[in-house]
Amino acid sequence: MSADRIAVVPGDGIGQEVVPVAVDVLDAVGNFEFVHANAGDAVAAETGDPLPDATYETVADADATIFGAAGDTAADVVLPLREAVGSFANVRPARAYPGVDALQPETDLVFVRENTEGVYAGIEDEITEGVSTLTRVVTDDASRDIAEFGFDYAVENGYDDVTVAHKANVMRETDGRFLDRCREVAREHPDIDESEVDEALMDALAMHLVQRPTDYGVVVCPNLAGDVLSDLAAGLVGGLGLLPSANVGRENGLFEPVHGSAPDIAGDGVANPSATVLSAAMLLEHLGYDEEAGRVRDAVESVLEAGPRTPDLGGDATTDDVGNAILDEL
Amino acid sequence: MSADRIAVVPGDGIGQEVVPVAVDVLDAVGNFEFVHANAGDAVAAETGDPLPDATYETVADADATIFGAAGDTAADVVLPLREAVGSFANVRPARAYPGVDALQPETDLVFVRENTEGVYAGIEDEITEGVSTLTRVVTDDASRDIAEFGFDYAVENGYDDVTVAHKANVMRETDGRFLDRCREVAREHPDIDESEVDEALMDALAMHLVQRPTDYGVVVCPNLAGDVLSDLAAGLVGGLGLLPSANVGRENGLFEPVHGSAPDIAGDGVANPSATVLSAAMLLEHLGYDEEAGRVRDAVESVLEAGPRTPDLGGDATTDDVGNAILDEL
Ligand SMILES: CC(C)[C@H](C(=O)O)[C@@H](O)C(=O)O
Ligand SMILES: CC(C)[C@H](C(=O)O)[C@@H](O)C(=O)O
Repeated sequence: MSADRIAVVPGDGIGQEVVPVAVDVLDAVGNFEFVHANAGDAVAAETGDPLPDATYETVADADATIFGAAGDTAADVVLPLREAVGSFANVRPARAYPGVDALQPETDLVFVRENTEGVYAGIEDEITEGVSTLTRVVTDDASRDIAEFGFDYAVENGYDDVTVAHKANVMRETDGRFLDRCREVAREHPDIDESEVDEALMDALAMHLVQRPTDYGVVVCPNLAGDVLSDLAAGLVGGLGLLPSANVGRENGLFEPVHGSAPDIAGDGVANPSATVLSAAMLLEHLGYDEEAGRVRDAVESVLEAGPRTPDLGGDATTDDVGNAILDEL
Repeated sequence: MSADRIAVVPGDGIGQEVVPVAVDVLDAVGNFEFVHANAGDAVAAETGDPLPDATYETVADADATIFGAAGDTAADVVLPLREAVGSFANVRPARAYPGVDALQPETDLVFVRENTEGVYAGIEDEITEGVSTLTRVVTDDASRDIAEFGFDYAVENGYDDVTVAHKANVMRETDGRFLDRCREVAREHPDIDESEVDEALMDALAMHLVQRPTDYGVVVCPNLAGDVLSDLAAGLVGGLGLLPSANVGRENGLFEPVHGSAPDIAGDGVANPSATVLSAAMLLEHLGYDEEAGRVRDAVESVLEAGPRTPDLGGDATTDDVGNAILDEL
């Protein structure tokens, strides 16, 4: 069997600093072929295009991609790359870790975000002078897919609490459709007790997540709701430096920290690589290397608990210090 | 001069319990003509219509309305009533109070939410089987109006930090328009330093508000962003029991607690009336009774600090206990 091919796309800013750590970690636990490509502001400045065709193809043809972050061109890079891997689900765990200051230290949430439509369908127009519209799209197919994925995820990962976020009291037809399909899937799912799937208006949910995150487990969300609620949860557990994410497709996947390119600290070598290494663990799981994924996660957790720590967590360690400590733990 | 006419619409659940307290408070500080009307689930069960024409007219013809909450029919009641008063701005202060347990005890935020368009324009359709769309609308006029209102509010109320929330990296045309108009208004505003108006992506803002709410003051938001972010802030200050809101129109206004009808405690007489009484203070201010508004606010704050307290704040007082204590303080 040939080695799995992993595309490596560091992007801009701290992406250039944290992605190499994740590659070292992947290299330490498995036998992979790495293919390097780039995207983002720097590439755009050079070539006029933040996402060269070659990068798109490299990602589309790989078995999985580890991506860092992009600057101002983020949307031009990450939205097409999610499509390149056929991603329909964006999985965003938000966990508090021992040793890390958190506003809500018991938080253990996983946002399962629809990754293809909603307002991200991106159909916009100037209808007449001074009036613009955006067409938000919700389909049965995408709604069923994300519900199935989310419920399976909850069952496989031992989460009892499943919540469907929506705003169907206002978006009656579109979020109504989303909610109806989620209900149907809950009814049909062999391992889900329909009556245990809660529904929550996204506004009220924002409040409850802040106050009582432990009441929740897996939260299945339309696209924009998942974007906002997962960032909210990052605030509860100590910031974006810890949140990994998986853009899951049928055959492929794109794995990226939830944080951005952090221009304020880029170049200083002090970015926290944890979110990217945890994203690499999700990549390993996606490729079927569950044992290796577990080892990587354990190593990150040990280092979060015992240090060294980067400045975002109150320490003065460098990215490399943390990277080496993770490698030592493996 | 004839007395100002205030429409009183308690609605459902705890609305029936907290609105009378606010009416007593208004009656204690001014000379008003109260006109009673109703709306919500109970009215719908009786008449088939959650918002009878007579109620709509009463609210449209009043100088201001104090509204409680509605149950399942909330959207059918509150969205038309906001329109009945010509409300273009929804003002939602979220403050932590001494004596009230808060996750972020220094929070002092005011969300200024666009109140007429965005996804709330509500144009939805089933395009073909299994595919629905919603048309999100953003206009120059509404965007300029909310920016002007928000910046004026910041200046008049002494807030230095002004932030415009948006998701213009994805909703380029619609939120792009919103953001451009906000920038223009900032540039033209005589008392606003353009360079001090921050812009924030609504997802990143959700995280930062959770972590460092004191970095923010007035937050000008598109409609749905304001809905979600203000509820998030409620979580930071100790829950919805404390958040008032003003739906501001040119000549009229609708004042309501941010909380809902709370069916779990409705009928027990233990609902916290603070949010509704604080909404009445906003009503007083809207009608020009600034001194009276200040007295009401001070009375609520004294009671929040010294008690009695309803169960949501850890006490065992009733709605009436708190109402009487507020009246005593006036
Ligand atoms: C960069 C942007 C397009 C993206 C999104 O909105 O999905 C980002 O916020 C994220 O959550 O990964
Ligand atoms: C009831 C609902 C239509 C309403 C809204 O979304 O505006 C509510 O959530 C609010 O914030 O007042």
